[in-house]
Amino acid sequence: MTFLNGIAASNGIAIAKAYRLVEPDLSFEQKKIEDASSEVARFRDAMAKAKSELEIIRDRAKVDLGPDKAAIFEAHLLVLSDPELNNPIEDKIGSENVNAEAALKETADMFVMMFEQMDNEYMKERAADIRDVTKRVLAHLLGVQLPNPSMIAEEVIIVSEDLTPSDTAQLNRQFVKGFTTNIGGRTSHSAIMARSLEIPAVVGTKTATEEIQNGDLVIVDGLKGEVHINPTPELVEQYKKVHEDFETQKAEWAKLVNEPTVSADGHHVELAANIGTPKDLKGVKENGGEGVGLYRTEFLYMGRDQLPTEEEQFEAYKAVLEGMEGKPVVVRTLDIGGDKELPYLELPKEMNPFLGFRAIRLCLEEQGIFRTQLKALLRASVYGNLKIMFPMIATLDEFRAAKAILEEEKQKLISGGQKVAEKIELGIMVEIPSTAVLADQFAKEVDFFSIGTNDLIQYTMAADRMNQRVSYLYQPYSPSILRLVKMVIDAAHAEGKWAGMCGEMAGDETAIPILLGLGLDEFSMSATSILKARSLIKNLKKSDMEGLAQQVLNMQTTDQVIEAVNAAIK
Amino acid sequence: MTFLNGIAASNGIAIAKAYRLVEPDLSFEQKKIEDASSEVARFRDAMAKAKSELEIIRDRAKVDLGPDKAAIFEAHLLVLSDPELNNPIEDKIGSENVNAEAALKETADMFVMMFEQMDNEYMKERAADIRDVTKRVLAHLLGVQLPNPSMIAEEVIIVSEDLTPSDTAQLNRQFVKGFTTNIGGRTSHSAIMARSLEIPAVVGTKTATEEIQNGDLVIVDGLKGEVHINPTPELVEQYKKVHEDFETQKAEWAKLVNEPTVSADGHHVELAANIGTPKDLKGVKENGGEGVGLYRTEFLYMGRDQLPTEEEQFEAYKAVLEGMEGKPVVVRTLDIGGDKELPYLELPKEMNPFLGFRAIRLCLEEQGIFRTQLKALLRASVYGNLKIMFPMIATLDEFRAAKAILEEEKQKLISGGQKVAEKIELGIMVEIPSTAVLADQFAKEVDFFSIGTNDLIQYTMAADRMNQRVSYLYQPYSPSILRLVKMVIDAAHAEGKWAGMCGEMAGDETAIPILLGLGLDEFSMSATSILKARSLIKNLKKSDMEGLAQQVLNMQTTDQVIEAVNAAIK
Repeated sequence: MTFLNGIAASNGIAIAKAYRLVEPDLSFEQKKIEDASSEVARFRDAMAKAKSELEIIRDRAKVDLGPDKAAIFEAHLLVLSDPELNNPIEDKIGSENVNAEAALKETADMFVMMFEQMDNEYMKERAADIRDVTKRVLAHLLGVQLPNPSMIAEEVIIVSEDLTPSDTAQLNRQFVKGFTTNIGGRTSHSAIMARSLEIPAVVGTKTATEEIQNGDLVIVDGLKGEVHINPTPELVEQYKKVHEDFETQKAEWAKLVNEPTVSADGHHVELAANIGTPKDLKGVKENGGEGVGLYRTEFLYMGRDQLPTEEEQFEAYKAVLEGMEGKPVVVRTLDIGGDKELPYLELPKEMNPFLGFRAIRLCLEEQGIFRTQLKALLRASVYGNLKIMFPMIATLDEFRAAKAILEEEKQKLISGGQKVAEKIELGIMVEIPSTAVLADQFAKEVDFFSIGTNDLIQYTMAADRMNQRVSYLYQPYSPSILRLVKMVIDAAHAEGKWAGMCGEMAGDETAIPILLGLGLDEFSMSATSILKARSLIKNLKKSDMEGLAQQVLNMQTTDQVIEAVNAAIK
Repeated sequence: MTFLNGIAASNGIAIAKAYRLVEPDLSFEQKKIEDASSEVARFRDAMAKAKSELEIIRDRAKVDLGPDKAAIFEAHLLVLSDPELNNPIEDKIGSENVNAEAALKETADMFVMMFEQMDNEYMKERAADIRDVTKRVLAHLLGVQLPNPSMIAEEVIIVSEDLTPSDTAQLNRQFVKGFTTNIGGRTSHSAIMARSLEIPAVVGTKTATEEIQNGDLVIVDGLKGEVHINPTPELVEQYKKVHEDFETQKAEWAKLVNEPTVSADGHHVELAANIGTPKDLKGVKENGGEGVGLYRTEFLYMGRDQLPTEEEQFEAYKAVLEGMEGKPVVVRTLDIGGDKELPYLELPKEMNPFLGFRAIRLCLEEQGIFRTQLKALLRASVYGNLKIMFPMIATLDEFRAAKAILEEEKQKLISGGQKVAEKIELGIMVEIPSTAVLADQFAKEVDFFSIGTNDLIQYTMAADRMNQRVSYLYQPYSPSILRLVKMVIDAAHAEGKWAGMCGEMAGDETAIPILLGLGLDEFSMSATSILKARSLIKNLKKSDMEGLAQQVLNMQTTDQVIEAVNAAIK
């Protein structure tokens, strides 16, 4: 029995057999062979095995994941049967007397290099296909097994270095009970995904892929951030109890679904949800969201090969506004650039994309894109309670420029006879230190603030939140971050405005008591965190939390803050 | 006559003929040729011309720049005479009947690709050599001229897209009177270099390389940030006058070389210099530096293939401390990573190096490197007035960890009988927003602060200062930056400590009045800015500047701040 410590990325307990999503060792030695014709036969055999394996995977993917996701395997099958690739390999075996592994690798590498050199997205994809197929054939030549996530047909815990969005697309959610990864933190893609799928997860274990073998029994404790490998039957029993308790707890929380969020001493706050598409509204309602605090519109622009039209956007915004039935919906205008690229926009490569040309910076320059989005939003505004916010605002000049464009589009629509909501609140994300420090000046001109802690923390600490080597500096409870949060809330209140938060921190159990004490008005989080947060707030007195907040603002380190919170809410 | 607006990067006026450091168009069409043997002859002729050109360049470089710098051309000559490269090209012309340009390019590309694929620094350099040589031969085939900066033998203004450190290494400073570039800002490498060489420069003109032809008469106005192309004789006369006035002004400033820096109402501040090597001390003394406010030790680690030994470092630190004759010398411990790479350290590539594993983050993990530097510093401490500061401190935990290591090394040295200065002030760079916001807590434990504005501004505004597309956000006079500066100064004074500044802002004419008003104790800048700053401060009343500072802290935009300063110091 082995035990790993990691980061609790998604609540809950999962107990199942391990499925390693890890590439096996595909290294080999190049060597001379005696009998070329039997080597060619060995090669053909591996090709045939790869082909029938791919056919099964494709068919399974079609059923479980849909024809879109299966298309990639169709492309792989085409590569497998391409004589332009196969003939040179067989020739090479024959003329140079090298083993099939070497002949395959060398020939494939040549094609990959050739295709990659072409300045053409289509050919580059072909290079990726050849690389994937080569791996599969090589695995058969070497007698090792590649992981085939789309083939999973029993309950498993996924074990991997990291989980990319494309890995997840291939997972059958019916069978994936939990996962654990070597890298990542609470705000990595894998962690955010796990919470939105409500799959228990522990990330950042560093060694999960080394310690866990296929078929090992694994417990993922997403509450404490622990992973147990081949546990004793006693521990399994204990964890089944923890799992039941957690389910009972969740059932308790579920009773709060239609309740308002009120502290023990009667202070009301709003718990809203972060969403990416209209489909997410189901989760918002099931979890009692009092509004949408962050609608990330960039998903409308991703996974496609051209910009969404005004009409497509209008339909999406309208669906969300209508779906929320008059409850507030805060839409963030396009935040691309940085780690979010759009292939069809051809943005220049940057040395530090997180400090680069993204979000409002891009929208103020590429005004066509921005104006289309604003028009769609303005037209949709009559279908609900729309609030608009601009991301990555660093200066008042930027806010004024963005607001002026919105006003222009509004006047154009109105002159054209289009109905537009009379009052649309206009706010900004506070995710750049400069803006937090100058919040008192911003508060004179904006209708609200929404603090984006994921970025605010990484800029304030000067630490890339995706970079493992500096992840120790991603400290939401640092007194410096809390002071900036206080500046923003105080600035809003001084001008009679409201302040929300839509970063990961807003749903964090340690942060919530402090944020309540600082007077945060709106907490926007993953829908699945809302009921737990509501339950927590109902048990806290705002007046006590004000004292706690005052105390932690004058502390020196993150550890002191965590201790103080734990002592206060015990 | 044409006029360009850019960024005034280095003071002064230069008038000379343009020398374009711009690569000519080397594109060509691949075509079939009739007579292969005459095409081979054409190729050999281009090779011979390239060879004799390279020989001249090498000889000139040996004399003007030294044998080290000339070695690169020696390597190029070796490539030129390598039959492994030449034979395949001639074969290709003969067997495929393609023109020499195509045969050269294809063959060279193949070698470059082959060498670059090898995981070996030496072979990668060979790839770069082949690329350079190919360009030169191609230019001769196409009948165009490559720029040869090391061949400049008359007074010129360099015109280029940008200037890299390796470009500058090839420039003969005797003849380069000024330069202008398309890109860059006040803190780009090219600008910092220009100031340290005292060469007038205007950067960021966007179109200099398009507008200026070789031999055009150019005026570089490094005072206003203007470039005049083929000016009228009247304008040339006017500028000769401006140049003379500037020289007279400089002579006036020179009289202040041994004066203290005292405001018109008797407040004393310290003007120190930023240096990179012991050689820079000459400039510090000529310009009346009252100390060294920033000794950037990373130059000791750069341009070599292994870490400097403790002894080498000791000698350098001792030389600076002795050279400053008891005046304060603030040494910054190693700040590498980010844009400053050391090939022999093999740091992992990062997606956002400015937000990555650098400076103290690296030193706390690679303690061997850090301890060697600290030992060298401690041993040198008895030779002058040493102060040590740590770069990129984001949390008190990091400062405490770094301090503990220093104390350990100090105790070890003392137990070994080594003399160490009794009191060595220990401070931190404040260049991360978190640290500025929490300065009151840091002030309880550090001896001093030095505000590093170049990084502080880029993190506070979340804008890479090297990225042209977001350079509009690099705003030293933003009220948010000024507020952070105030927090740091006030925090220091509340604990009886001192606060300095060693970013570009400390020597900036618009910033100095505000910084004086905020109570900054030490201003550390390029040595060449010191006398001008001293002259400016002598004419300001601190009490007036306190009023100005109070006023600008409550402004909304950078433009308002600049206006207020201009109004106040008129």
